[in-house]
Amino acid sequence: MRTVLVIQPVVMRAWEAGDGQELVRYLDRVKGPTTVVETVAITLGPASIETFYDEALALPGILRAVEQHGADCDAVVINCFADPGIVAVRQIVEVPVVGAAEASMALALQLGHRFAVVSTGESAGPWIELQARAMGVESRLAGAVGIAIPVLGLGTDPDETARALILAANDLIETKGANVIVLGCTGMAPVAEVVRTALPVPVVEPMAAALKTAEILAELGLRHARSGLYVPPDKTKFID
Amino acid sequence: MRTVLVIQPVVMRAWEAGDGQELVRYLDRVKGPTTVVETVAITLGPASIETFYDEALALPGILRAVEQHGADCDAVVINCFADPGIVAVRQIVEVPVVGAAEASMALALQLGHRFAVVSTGESAGPWIELQARAMGVESRLAGAVGIAIPVLGLGTDPDETARALILAANDLIETKGANVIVLGCTGMAPVAEVVRTALPVPVVEPMAAALKTAEILAELGLRHARSGLYVPPDKTKFID
Amino acid sequence: MRTVLVIQPVVMRAWEAGDGQELVRYLDRVKGPTTVVETVAITLGPASIETFYDEALALPGILRAVEQHGADCDAVVINCFADPGIVAVRQIVEVPVVGAAEASMALALQLGHRFAVVSTGESAGPWIELQARAMGVESRLAGAVGIAIPVLGLGTDPDETARALILAANDLIETKGANVIVLGCTGMAPVAEVVRTALPVPVVEPMAAALKTAEILAELGLRHARSGLYVPPDKTKFID
Amino acid sequence: MRTVLVIQPVVMRAWEAGDGQELVRYLDRVKGPTTVVETVAITLGPASIETFYDEALALPGILRAVEQHGADCDAVVINCFADPGIVAVRQIVEVPVVGAAEASMALALQLGHRFAVVSTGESAGPWIELQARAMGVESRLAGAVGIAIPVLGLGTDPDETARALILAANDLIETKGANVIVLGCTGMAPVAEVVRTALPVPVVEPMAAALKTAEILAELGLRHARSGLYVPPDKTKFID
Amino acid sequence: MRTVLVIQPVVMRAWEAGDGQELVRYLDRVKGPTTVVETVAITLGPASIETFYDEALALPGILRAVEQHGADCDAVVINCFADPGIVAVRQIVEVPVVGAAEASMALALQLGHRFAVVSTGESAGPWIELQARAMGVESRLAGAVGIAIPVLGLGTDPDETARALILAANDLIETKGANVIVLGCTGMAPVAEVVRTALPVPVVEPMAAALKTAEILAELGLRHARSGLYVPPDKTKFID
Amino acid sequence: MRTVLVIQPVVMRAWEAGDGQELVRYLDRVKGPTTVVETVAITLGPASIETFYDEALALPGILRAVEQHGADCDAVVINCFADPGIVAVRQIVEVPVVGAAEASMALALQLGHRFAVVSTGESAGPWIELQARAMGVESRLAGAVGIAIPVLGLGTDPDETARALILAANDLIETKGANVIVLGCTGMAPVAEVVRTALPVPVVEPMAAALKTAEILAELGLRHARSGLYVPPDKTKFID
Repeated sequence: MRTVLVIQPVVMRAWEAGDGQELVRYLDRVKGPTTVVETVAITLGPASIETFYDEALALPGILRAVEQHGADCDAVVINCFADPGIVAVRQIVEVPVVGAAEASMALALQLGHRFAVVSTGESAGPWIELQARAMGVESRLAGAVGIAIPVLGLGTDPDETARALILAANDLIETKGANVIVLGCTGMAPVAEVVRTALPVPVVEPMAAALKTAEILAELGLRHARSGLYVPPDKTKFID
Repeated sequence: MRTVLVIQPVVMRAWEAGDGQELVRYLDRVKGPTTVVETVAITLGPASIETFYDEALALPGILRAVEQHGADCDAVVINCFADPGIVAVRQIVEVPVVGAAEASMALALQLGHRFAVVSTGESAGPWIELQARAMGVESRLAGAVGIAIPVLGLGTDPDETARALILAANDLIETKGANVIVLGCTGMAPVAEVVRTALPVPVVEPMAAALKTAEILAELGLRHARSGLYVPPDKTKFID
Repeated sequence: MRTVLVIQPVVMRAWEAGDGQELVRYLDRVKGPTTVVETVAITLGPASIETFYDEALALPGILRAVEQHGADCDAVVINCFADPGIVAVRQIVEVPVVGAAEASMALALQLGHRFAVVSTGESAGPWIELQARAMGVESRLAGAVGIAIPVLGLGTDPDETARALILAANDLIETKGANVIVLGCTGMAPVAEVVRTALPVPVVEPMAAALKTAEILAELGLRHARSGLYVPPDKTKFID
Repeated sequence: MRTVLVIQPVVMRAWEAGDGQELVRYLDRVKGPTTVVETVAITLGPASIETFYDEALALPGILRAVEQHGADCDAVVINCFADPGIVAVRQIVEVPVVGAAEASMALALQLGHRFAVVSTGESAGPWIELQARAMGVESRLAGAVGIAIPVLGLGTDPDETARALILAANDLIETKGANVIVLGCTGMAPVAEVVRTALPVPVVEPMAAALKTAEILAELGLRHARSGLYVPPDKTKFID
Repeated sequence: MRTVLVIQPVVMRAWEAGDGQELVRYLDRVKGPTTVVETVAITLGPASIETFYDEALALPGILRAVEQHGADCDAVVINCFADPGIVAVRQIVEVPVVGAAEASMALALQLGHRFAVVSTGESAGPWIELQARAMGVESRLAGAVGIAIPVLGLGTDPDETARALILAANDLIETKGANVIVLGCTGMAPVAEVVRTALPVPVVEPMAAALKTAEILAELGLRHARSGLYVPPDKTKFID
Repeated sequence: MRTVLVIQPVVMRAWEAGDGQELVRYLDRVKGPTTVVETVAITLGPASIETFYDEALALPGILRAVEQHGADCDAVVINCFADPGIVAVRQIVEVPVVGAAEASMALALQLGHRFAVVSTGESAGPWIELQARAMGVESRLAGAVGIAIPVLGLGTDPDETARALILAANDLIETKGANVIVLGCTGMAPVAEVVRTALPVPVVEPMAAALKTAEILAELGLRHARSGLYVPPDKTKFID
């Protein structure tokens, strides 16, 4: 049995009542038979991450969650397309740390000539361009855009969400030559199947991509070096 | 149950007597519990792929093997770091096609700041640079070199092979800043564990990386678009 | 006198009856006064190269043709914009080896700020982007597209072929800022003059570009190094 | 009169006793005659920023400091070479926001063919490479390294600090062709003059570079667009 | 007091009568309180620089002007967006040399995700792309275009000039995702304020950007290395 | 018969007595049988081009020489590795304009995986890097260095010149992986054969490369577009 710790880097008000349950059910369907998924959400921070500001306020909670729950897991998944804190988390754990964006883009590289990302919000396009540059895959990115529905509204009218994603994706396919579509938000998992059915190209759902990548890194015994970029921090110098 | 067709793109003289058996045993250890691995080697072509010339002569055999054996599988793996014929195979099948180099480099991107590849032969360094450029990840490649032991000699003295790989890898770590090492030949699987133990950074073994990536692409229902680069060929125009 | 061996990497059914003669006449018009052009077509393989699949099946024939006919020539030209087997051929001969795409793009770099390529078929655009990246000139490529007429149909209605090329070229000039057009198929030579007359920018015909480049490399005594990427293969390990 | 708010993104224990005073005196020497410098340090977080982990824990404090003190200033400077929170701060203010790294690299581009950065710690080299890539100036970066003295030890033995910086800088000049040196930590200001005198190339001290850049952006009335990457966050969705 | 020598690299027929006065008044408004601006125009050469031909004929005059007037200044500004002679001038002076394009682009990098340049004339777009590549910031350039009004006509109908600039800028903002506009000609200073007011993104006026950058380089004691690219020429080998 | 106008962009004091004769004899050996080479040197300017300052002072003479002698030629060659004025000359003539560096690098791209340039002087390395970037081939450049012998001293002791070039080239081959060497000065033609014999990789002599490229562009009827970057200048606005 292998345990993957999935960090939900946002405060989920409705966690116990429902949203968290839906997340857990989705991960259960996606995970391999020998994987145990443990999910933890931060308790202080934003309800969604759509700007660098949101991300900044989520980071201490992510690190605290990893420090509290990461001791015995075999891999960590940061469940947000911003990959918030991915380098910082690698600096404090010995197990592989997988981001939704990195994992999705790594698979997309193997599925088509150019991929595009459809996310939400005005900030998403340039932000994802920065992510692709940081990962060194910017020449494979056909484009990135955000639909006008905010993260917390994605579930309000799933049909409308799917329609908006399909419209944006088809535009990237036709005008930018994209032949892979990556969904740029892990909150889009509920509509991924509808979008996939409607589009003529493969569609990568990032939460599943990250979980499966975490599983195979754990199985292969692969984890980042603890030197260079990922050298452990000196935790004695924090002051409060 | 999912079937992964592993194409061995070289002629294996000793297939029945032993080499093929070792390959099968390795894949059996690596594969997931619900995966069936079917292995097929080409019967006409080079005994190893170390130059573009070798690769060119292997390609028709690879395509024939896929055409004969690829009908009912769920994914295809090309079991050679040259990823020979990977685009051509994608043009003739509907299932995901995974190359050892692409899969290894995609995982390496998630394990460190810069990766390096240790392969065999004088041609390997520039060839792998071309592969990294084709994949669009050249800015993450710290370097690529070949050791002086040819592919068919890698098993002659495994200790010597491991020593040479460790020496070359440590040089790339120290002088080029590599913090992930990718083994640049699927024939290095037998010594991968020894090399991994000796090095201070993660070591990606490409055959396992490719098989596990094929498994998750199949599980996620992800396959390349059949448009653009992967449009099906017109098979009526071949003449003999 | 200098001999340039032109490899026709496709099976030409109508070789003796006509197509081959037209090719020979074109090369005769283009060649320098002291050049002897020797032309050889492969006898087993595709009738045209429009996909990686086609190319893969042409490669053994190309290598065989070079091995049989390349002994006494002063340069080799691979007469197809895919530059099929160009590296493999360099690994087995001592004389300069020129590809239609490489030669055309090298001249295009000296004729304008950005060049575009007009080829045939759906696969052409991304394929040519990969070629430009492999050559390291992707920042100079304004775009690449294929017209809807397949290679073997280019000669059916030359006026229609020219019209389609001119239309595609003007679009690349106006929307992508191309100021050089490269014809992306050596089968377009018969309509090159018509296209050139119609366009406001220079038009590079790749067969002529390759032949003239082969001539000057031979005259300058320039041939590739036989080390690194072009190290000779070990021919003893081929098995049939 | 123009006010520049300088955010010290680390907790300064000795603020009142001395370190803060030294910082204020330095900024006073560097600032223009009509500039008022207002300095504020965060009160909860790391004592220095040397890893992504440190940075993550500093971010909420930086944003809070800007929200509390940024109302009436004409520009904001983030006084750390990691440029922590620079995008997030731009999302919440209307005035120009200047980072020490961005400002230093922007000036370095105008002073030599290639610049190199000398910072502190093992993580610094790859981190600064990521910063240069994010800024799009990676082709101008000759190299980046960290000396072995941690940030909080830079002032312990200034002579030793200067010696280590000069040694590292000369190595980058000689082996990497750097002809501009950027000091990669604002805590190096006290030894900048000694280093500058010892080196044969220009030396950019980042705190001064950032302050002067903030002054001229304010004078020129230049501030970032509040659209795209810098769109304002929805502050109602934070939960505690 | 610091003296900045502003080289006007074009022949200004109307210098004494008016154009030069307007230039002087603008620089006086922009400069800092302790800066003395000394302006000198070349006396032999083009009346404006819109092509490489124009620039070539301006260069000897620029160098002569620097040699005659550059002895006691603290910084040199080349007052033209082509940055004519900027490297050559650095080879002959010890003080910082600032170009209008370099200074503008360096500031634009700090103001938005992608900048675009609006200049004049058909040649401007590709020329500015070459400048951005030479500076290594091409990945940040959204686009560059020239309006149809020539440099010497920019002042004929300032309203029409502003209208054309605003139209071109809005197109770059909407179709290319630019979120900073750089005016690509120092002759556009008189209409900069009108353009700035009309656009939803920051607008960089290059003459002011260059003067302010010269001031801060001088104040920071930063000047280019006199080695490598900027090694002094051997002036004894000029023959006339 | 085709006429190639070779512009010697330096003042050759000893033109009539000898240097010019040697140049003419070399070009005569290299040119094709139907080519007429017409050579013209500038009469006012530097004796050699080793810095941007030198180049700037050579430009008006180059343009004047083209204007006076370029009327009836079929191609223009600028005979200096700096390619001085190459864009400006294209703006004023209708025939192909070939630079020694562009032509050499275009051929080098077809001869090996990475090329290196060996030139003269301290400025050469970064200058050639800028040239490779401007041409968009920087990823193929292994390195560029200058030997310590100045241009005007290359002929003083040809054996010593050859020795220095061979030493520098071998270093680039061994430490940078170069497998093509480009001589970075047209004044190195007299020692090119000695250097070529001594090195294990192809050696491109730029004067011959440029002349042969000019011949084939003329034969193929290829000339640059007169739009975009190469739009003709307005010659009425020059003032003296």
